[in-house]
Amino acid sequence: MSDFEQTATEIVWRGRIGEVRVERYRHADGEEVVREVVGHPGAVAIVAHDDVHLWLVRQPREICGERALLEVPAGKLDAGDEEPLAAAERELAEEVGKAADHWEHLTAIYTSPGFTDEQIYLYLATGLRDVPRPEVDEDERIEIVAWPLRRLDDAIAACVDAKSLCALLLLRARRG
Amino acid sequence: MSDFEQTATEIVWRGRIGEVRVERYRHADGEEVVREVVGHPGAVAIVAHDDVHLWLVRQPREICGERALLEVPAGKLDAGDEEPLAAAERELAEEVGKAADHWEHLTAIYTSPGFTDEQIYLYLATGLRDVPRPEVDEDERIEIVAWPLRRLDDAIAACVDAKSLCALLLLRARRG
Repeated sequence: MSDFEQTATEIVWRGRIGEVRVERYRHADGEEVVREVVGHPGAVAIVAHDDVHLWLVRQPREICGERALLEVPAGKLDAGDEEPLAAAERELAEEVGKAADHWEHLTAIYTSPGFTDEQIYLYLATGLRDVPRPEVDEDERIEIVAWPLRRLDDAIAACVDAKSLCALLLLRARRG
Repeated sequence: MSDFEQTATEIVWRGRIGEVRVERYRHADGEEVVREVVGHPGAVAIVAHDDVHLWLVRQPREICGERALLEVPAGKLDAGDEEPLAAAERELAEEVGKAADHWEHLTAIYTSPGFTDEQIYLYLATGLRDVPRPEVDEDERIEIVAWPLRRLDDAIAACVDAKSLCALLLLRARRG
């Protein structure tokens, strides 16, 4: 594989989800390429379970035309370089009202490296306890789903969201 | 979960990767929400193997700052409503020079339903044979990787691309 360097970048649109940039790169052999990228701050996703339940969420994803996708708790890193683990703790409390004694970083995935630099840090959270859900001013309509852990394979079959499917399949691979 | 209807959509940027739209939706309870979406034509990804090898690719992903990501063969649906299976057959030939006698649709995943409608159809391709790689005018610098199938778990550990990780983990789950 060739090394490359960025030679130019220009912001062509800016919104709440991030910004769109047109970037130019030069490879070591001289070839120049132009890439369009949706710049994203990064995100976290958490597969959280106790002895009985997986703690999932269901929410409408209007832009996909989906009334209710089954997902693991997740969210964007806050502006100002929030640490991924801090974001994961915050999102687990906000979305399902849980804190965890044990956190394990499973991996980090690029969601679609052809057009966005979004990277999602995946965590396994265990040793759960209830905490108050902080009030957040978001129009996300999140419904908490206490999914029976013994039905993990059914959750995998019901899940069509990439981060959630990765997280649940990684959990399944560990449980053998 | 509430039903919703789209009440407005406006294209705010258009490029090679797709278009950015600002959309408005009204839920059945009257709440209105505004969503930004990167509109995407959809894509396919293929986990292809014979008795000895998994057929993977390695390519630079400049926008992620990555010299070489390990991925399964994949690509966007061509304009004009290309059928996903036809796209999968085309991409398998273009990227790794293979055709397959057996195709199985595994699932379809949304890569990041918070900001894009991109959906990737995942296929399992077996019964492989060599075919000429068509000439394609793309600056993708794809390197074919013949990965030992018995080292599937190592491929999973080396993979940080969501579609590829989903595809390889689904293969692992089937092989028991």
